[in-house]
Amino acid sequence: MNNLTNACMDLIGEVRTKTPLIHNITNYVTVNDCANAVLAIGASPIMADDAAEVEEIVSISSALVINIGTLNQRTIESMIIAGKKANELHIPIVLDPVGAGASSLRNKATREILSQVKIDVLRGNLSEVSFVAGLSVSTKGVDTAEADLKNDAADIAKKVANKLSCVVGITGEVDTISDGVRVAKIANGNKLLAKVTGTGCMTSALVGSFCGATTDYYTAAVAGIAAMGISGELAFEKTGAVGTGSFHIGIIDALSNMNSTCFAERAKIDEN
Amino acid sequence: MNNLTNACMDLIGEVRTKTPLIHNITNYVTVNDCANAVLAIGASPIMADDAAEVEEIVSISSALVINIGTLNQRTIESMIIAGKKANELHIPIVLDPVGAGASSLRNKATREILSQVKIDVLRGNLSEVSFVAGLSVSTKGVDTAEADLKNDAADIAKKVANKLSCVVGITGEVDTISDGVRVAKIANGNKLLAKVTGTGCMTSALVGSFCGATTDYYTAAVAGIAAMGISGELAFEKTGAVGTGSFHIGIIDALSNMNSTCFAERAKIDEN
Amino acid sequence: MNNLTNACMDLIGEVRTKTPLIHNITNYVTVNDCANAVLAIGASPIMADDAAEVEEIVSISSALVINIGTLNQRTIESMIIAGKKANELHIPIVLDPVGAGASSLRNKATREILSQVKIDVLRGNLSEVSFVAGLSVSTKGVDTAEADLKNDAADIAKKVANKLSCVVGITGEVDTISDGVRVAKIANGNKLLAKVTGTGCMTSALVGSFCGATTDYYTAAVAGIAAMGISGELAFEKTGAVGTGSFHIGIIDALSNMNSTCFAERAKIDEN
Repeated sequence: MNNLTNACMDLIGEVRTKTPLIHNITNYVTVNDCANAVLAIGASPIMADDAAEVEEIVSISSALVINIGTLNQRTIESMIIAGKKANELHIPIVLDPVGAGASSLRNKATREILSQVKIDVLRGNLSEVSFVAGLSVSTKGVDTAEADLKNDAADIAKKVANKLSCVVGITGEVDTISDGVRVAKIANGNKLLAKVTGTGCMTSALVGSFCGATTDYYTAAVAGIAAMGISGELAFEKTGAVGTGSFHIGIIDALSNMNSTCFAERAKIDEN
Repeated sequence: MNNLTNACMDLIGEVRTKTPLIHNITNYVTVNDCANAVLAIGASPIMADDAAEVEEIVSISSALVINIGTLNQRTIESMIIAGKKANELHIPIVLDPVGAGASSLRNKATREILSQVKIDVLRGNLSEVSFVAGLSVSTKGVDTAEADLKNDAADIAKKVANKLSCVVGITGEVDTISDGVRVAKIANGNKLLAKVTGTGCMTSALVGSFCGATTDYYTAAVAGIAAMGISGELAFEKTGAVGTGSFHIGIIDALSNMNSTCFAERAKIDEN
Repeated sequence: MNNLTNACMDLIGEVRTKTPLIHNITNYVTVNDCANAVLAIGASPIMADDAAEVEEIVSISSALVINIGTLNQRTIESMIIAGKKANELHIPIVLDPVGAGASSLRNKATREILSQVKIDVLRGNLSEVSFVAGLSVSTKGVDTAEADLKNDAADIAKKVANKLSCVVGITGEVDTISDGVRVAKIANGNKLLAKVTGTGCMTSALVGSFCGATTDYYTAAVAGIAAMGISGELAFEKTGAVGTGSFHIGIIDALSNMNSTCFAERAKIDEN
């Protein structure tokens, strides 16, 4: 077992001990799953998106997760206000640029957030992260047009990590995480994860949960992404034959049972 | 087996092959179920409701589903903007007039949408569709006051279909679908479907999913409505004795396993 | 068995017979669960939050549930408009002051609602209700800082009930309900209820469902809170070992099977 896997295992214990409060400004499609994923992994969720209260809410939180899945003018403003306050207080921020590249509003909002807020972790699929990197990628909605870019995930993650001075997590068949120097690859997961809405959003919420329990955001990103991959495998083994409704519930079940032993047995994390 | 059932079976294969992107402007009560139903049947969902992005989002989509379940001034505007763009690009539109008849806002919004947007399928219960037809019906919230109108479902469906030049799907104990000339009746379903919120919304999202894979919207409406009825039966057989929470999950499970064989064995579709 | 338990049992039958329509202005995190909980216990939910329609919607409803979980300027206005209309028509109102104490916006909104609307039941945890009582309590997000106040729950419930002339339900390890004179304690429940988001919101929606079937709001509050506690126990017995995803579904299952027999066997309600 490598050092990174060990660090993730420790962090899985830490989050259950500390139960950090995680402020989510997120979309209304998957918000319930995100809250339940945060609770399942041992943290505590709070959802609040009005500009008049996000500064106060983020101030009592240990991490902020910004997800632009169903953004609108009102919530974009709240994201920026909350982000600035989090920066001021050195509270870590995870940004999930859902569907970046799919509309000018999403592109503009992503740029605005990144220009006014220093984020700590960027978590998206290859097309979303590539868009943020300024690479030309066609996007089919919120799903990935991975084709040509697949082999470049490590390069892109590294490049974006350096550009934004943050940790970048690109999720896909193999997940790639970089802090600009190190690159980790995670081979966990199951194809059925793409057949349930919100598995990406939940992954970002998990990363936020771990960020709330450490200052090592690289390990937090790896732990959060690996926890979802492992949960997808466990859920598939127990419910894959039944259908995607049961698989969806199985993901939350697996997250709620996640501990360092289970993590150690399953994690396929490589670092180079 | 009749031709219509055969056409539905083909369409069930088509949607899994084409995985059309379905743009949903919908309510926050059942949006997660709608996204998961769209994924389960083999299409791909995107939820976006800000006026600044709906034109772009609908432009990359294969169908638009408008659901007024928790409408507000902001989203009504977005529905109309998206609808006009869809018309311009000949992208099919499904309208679900949730609770039409229950408030002036819903009535006015429905009228405004219908006056500015040409819809392709109207999917609702008898009281909602009757309201759209201009018939006087008392509505108890979002549920049906079916009493006297039950026997007239075929007449009403036909009448509204001709009035709006669209396909009309009225769901109830027996579902009635008409394109103004043909009338199909579907005898699938289970009473427990009324005990889970969102089964109507999911039905509209399924109809939208099928519309995204064909130009035959009549067959798409029949396939979507029958798929939900059959899934309700299958879910009831597996989970009906357990409770409505498990039944809810069972619906998504059944949708994710839906194929032409299962459809053929179960479908009770008559046309006259 | 005491009289209060008997009255609750009768009410459980009543709600299934009357299927009252329950208007919910609530948060987008747990709204789906609230709607399904209302359906599971035998009532009928309607979610509507636009200022332009809430007066009409509440007018056809048998109870109004106001939940400030993800409040914003737009919905606060709607809550007050709906509340005033409900008062005018003598329709009972349940207020769930989610996170009161955690931000100025929530505090101000709670005060505004209470100053303009006469509520019938206040349902919250100890820190939320204490805030409403004007007691100084530190809040960690939407969760309770119960520590010192625990033994005072009965006093606080009674005090707030008298101050607001309403029924107060404080949920926690032991639940405390008071109408200002009587105080009931409920010892049902399971610790896993805190590991699923929305169990508090669902409890308020259940209380609203019972309020829609009686004029005895004290019994309605006890019945709603006990129904959730008992469902938590039943769900834990069937699914506790599996994980919190299955437990979540098990709660809805148990609510959908709730009847007076099951209630009688389980209820641990004391009154003094």
